[in-house]
Amino acid sequence: MNPAHPPVRDPNRVLIFDTTLRDGEQSPGASMNLGEKLEIARTLEALGVDVIEAGFPIASPDDFAAVKAIAEQSQRSIICGLARSLKGDIDRAAEAVKPAGARARVHIFLATSAIHRQYKLNKVKEEIVKQAREAVAYAKTLIDDIEFSPEDASRTEPDFLAEVVQAVIDAGARTVNIPDTVGYAYPSDYADLITYLRTHVKGIDNVVISVHCHNDLGLAVANSLAAVRAGARQVECTINGIGERAGNCSLEEVVMAMRVRKDQFAGISTGVISQHLYGASRLVQSITGLPLQRNKAIVGDNAFAHESGIHQHGMMKNPETYEIMTPKSVGVPDTNLVLGKHSGRAALGKRLETLGLAVGEADLNKVFEAFKTLADKKKEVYDGDLIALVEEVVRGTTVSVWKLDYLHTASASGAGAGTGAMATATVRLTKDGKTVTDAATGDGPVDAVISALNRITGVAGMVEDYRLRAVTKGGDALGEVSLRAKLALGGGEAVVVGGKGLSTDIVHASCLAYLDAINRIGYQIGRLDYRTAAS
Amino acid sequence: MNPAHPPVRDPNRVLIFDTTLRDGEQSPGASMNLGEKLEIARTLEALGVDVIEAGFPIASPDDFAAVKAIAEQSQRSIICGLARSLKGDIDRAAEAVKPAGARARVHIFLATSAIHRQYKLNKVKEEIVKQAREAVAYAKTLIDDIEFSPEDASRTEPDFLAEVVQAVIDAGARTVNIPDTVGYAYPSDYADLITYLRTHVKGIDNVVISVHCHNDLGLAVANSLAAVRAGARQVECTINGIGERAGNCSLEEVVMAMRVRKDQFAGISTGVISQHLYGASRLVQSITGLPLQRNKAIVGDNAFAHESGIHQHGMMKNPETYEIMTPKSVGVPDTNLVLGKHSGRAALGKRLETLGLAVGEADLNKVFEAFKTLADKKKEVYDGDLIALVEEVVRGTTVSVWKLDYLHTASASGAGAGTGAMATATVRLTKDGKTVTDAATGDGPVDAVISALNRITGVAGMVEDYRLRAVTKGGDALGEVSLRAKLALGGGEAVVVGGKGLSTDIVHASCLAYLDAINRIGYQIGRLDYRTAAS
Repeated sequence: MNPAHPPVRDPNRVLIFDTTLRDGEQSPGASMNLGEKLEIARTLEALGVDVIEAGFPIASPDDFAAVKAIAEQSQRSIICGLARSLKGDIDRAAEAVKPAGARARVHIFLATSAIHRQYKLNKVKEEIVKQAREAVAYAKTLIDDIEFSPEDASRTEPDFLAEVVQAVIDAGARTVNIPDTVGYAYPSDYADLITYLRTHVKGIDNVVISVHCHNDLGLAVANSLAAVRAGARQVECTINGIGERAGNCSLEEVVMAMRVRKDQFAGISTGVISQHLYGASRLVQSITGLPLQRNKAIVGDNAFAHESGIHQHGMMKNPETYEIMTPKSVGVPDTNLVLGKHSGRAALGKRLETLGLAVGEADLNKVFEAFKTLADKKKEVYDGDLIALVEEVVRGTTVSVWKLDYLHTASASGAGAGTGAMATATVRLTKDGKTVTDAATGDGPVDAVISALNRITGVAGMVEDYRLRAVTKGGDALGEVSLRAKLALGGGEAVVVGGKGLSTDIVHASCLAYLDAINRIGYQIGRLDYRTAAS
Repeated sequence: MNPAHPPVRDPNRVLIFDTTLRDGEQSPGASMNLGEKLEIARTLEALGVDVIEAGFPIASPDDFAAVKAIAEQSQRSIICGLARSLKGDIDRAAEAVKPAGARARVHIFLATSAIHRQYKLNKVKEEIVKQAREAVAYAKTLIDDIEFSPEDASRTEPDFLAEVVQAVIDAGARTVNIPDTVGYAYPSDYADLITYLRTHVKGIDNVVISVHCHNDLGLAVANSLAAVRAGARQVECTINGIGERAGNCSLEEVVMAMRVRKDQFAGISTGVISQHLYGASRLVQSITGLPLQRNKAIVGDNAFAHESGIHQHGMMKNPETYEIMTPKSVGVPDTNLVLGKHSGRAALGKRLETLGLAVGEADLNKVFEAFKTLADKKKEVYDGDLIALVEEVVRGTTVSVWKLDYLHTASASGAGAGTGAMATATVRLTKDGKTVTDAATGDGPVDAVISALNRITGVAGMVEDYRLRAVTKGGDALGEVSLRAKLALGGGEAVVVGGKGLSTDIVHASCLAYLDAINRIGYQIGRLDYRTAAS
């Protein structure tokens, strides 16, 4: 037992080692700049991550600078830099993490599987053991906290793996990581490998056994959990599960699985503050430009969304019928009962109430009938559609929302257009038979349209999140824009509302989406002023 | 043993039950129309799926019609309709699947867990057992192939679950499904439950035990696999893992896990033709409008992409160093070595060769240096960038590609604009100091831009896939358009090329992306004609 090493103090504490900034950054398309990396590192510390793998300092001068800057700003997490088993790599890594002081770690790796030895390294077993031992011993002269990874461990002969692990522990490694580099492991098999090492390597219980799983077969979380049950006490993972190929073990999934299934992980704990998971996920999505699929576990848009009528019915009686954790426990703002063709009458009634459109029982039946007809035609029924339905079905009037009558945009860009792009939008809206026309300029046509819509409706607002997806395929594909906007009316407090729009023309779809958001805020606040002055 | 029941014939055959059209369609945002459902059903049959759950016929007239139409067109898969344990539901489901003849199945469910009994159904145990038994017995008078699901089975008291399962088997159910409705199961625990049922229910080995897992804790695939090892012989799953909340077990992951880890699944087989997985995934993405995250296992854009220099180096020596299955085995066109800051010199050289830009060893060093500088600034280095680098660094000339000098678009839409939207784009391009200007109209500004670019460059083309993602966040967010286009030059054969563009203005980014694609095809074909006539 090494008393200076925090993880060993509590045998039931599983350390969370986040490698979003290293393995995650290796996701094609995910490179981040220095400011972005510092922001993610701060978020990871606030999330309660024990170790932050900040980068691979030898890879480039920018990587080195990022690891160093993260080490400098760090407050409580261990800051780790990656290095091959080469003196030059280790020097750079040690230098980069040094500002973290007692919280500095160097993570050294060397491939050990037969296929990597033969094809990548062209080295025999004895050479591998020697290089690993010498690398750790050398690193130990620079930094006390050394982690070693035999790359492709899950495909390495167990007896040779034990030999390498023994050598690096003897040389002073404090953490030995057993990576499933290629995502090949199967849970029971992987747990057996951890057990094998624990029974065949002397002194292994004085170091932390770590696991690092890739998701090529969809088993990264299950493999990590199986290893924890076999005695691993560090899990390497990333926010949103990003990383090389199919990515790494997802931090949010592995942490919440241990928490929700505490019956299977008796006494086990992590330092993660789960209420910060959703925010961390959003930040990483935004910075990396790698959006999640809607059904991503824990943090996806649909993770707490219920569409089927049967589920919605149960959820309204007792959320535990279909939810094993609360959205709040992972920082998700609210359970989302999405209205679609599978939704029941009760869910519709509840949504209308939320929109301030409570109707009587008899009227609800009428609205529900009209809703079912509409839902069979539309993929999703938006709040704007519901407002229109209630107006038409219950009140027998046409709906009093802004409608787009005419949209014209013109824009110029390119070097020949002078400095910066310039666009103009002309918009004509109608409401209750009145017509208002106005124009505005912007960075591009969408920006100009939003400014014109703000002018006409008297809303002050900006777009916070913008997504486009194809709804149909082929040449004449319809695109759906969904956006989240922060809107204020007549100097009032700003509220965040969503809006959607569908068109073959992106600019047109964006205009409809923003107008949808404006119509919702009008109903949420209970009024919408006319700006007749501009007409 | 029931000799008429195909699954029981081969004890090692795991039936794949696809519920993309039922549970998958319940993903918020995923509703599909009749034609789309028929197309997916045809694709599922071609993929070799054993059972297609086509819908929930009582839910709406459209659902009924879809199940019936799928039953009518079906050629080899069992077609299944879902029903609550109610006579009306069962009648509708049986009527809908009838056209499938001997391949017709009705799938009946009833919740059995304490929380569902109390809060959703308000029924005691005896009532549940009676209702389940009677529902199966009634259905059996209409259709021979009955499947029964005790909803929320994984949270049901095992002894009561065994009682319900015994009752429905005695009443004639041929498949009993043990769903993990809320995604709560843990693999070893779930396997124990299957084993418990196999030892406590008489005659259970004469029926097929099925599993249906949700992914709320990221364990759907692991749970399904653990159940198969415990004796389950049907796995319910969906293409891309879509479904309620965090979705269902992903078909492609569970099938490939059993195939890649055949050492863990000795003798086990499925009927899935894995080479069709990628195509099926693309179709479902396109129809549902639910894009996958890039690191989705098996079928995501990055599943076979390698960015780090170390991985790229290994991959070029022997793909098995980092790939446990070939892209070809799941129908993915090609392994994707994405060039970015982590890429090595060898990967750059290989990509230049592919682009027809082979350079000598000394020149490669120069290009690599310039590439590293560029890669530190850019998230991804596109082929267009490489072409420019080679021209500048090696040939000392400015690159001979089309460059955008000026872009002007104008568009009108809305009811007040007359029938249909109308847009005009004016584009000025330069190449080798020459300037060409032309204009075209289109459905929207992007469409008009593409037509104008086609005119100027003499390319005949159309966009096949279009994606937009935010690269930076906040009000002045940069959007990156990536598209795949089918382009032909001067009446030649069309080739599919990708292109990317970045701008604060979506239309501008789209223009740059399409131009990027055009510049690539020019280099692929080895020439780019001037259309000076239009200048």
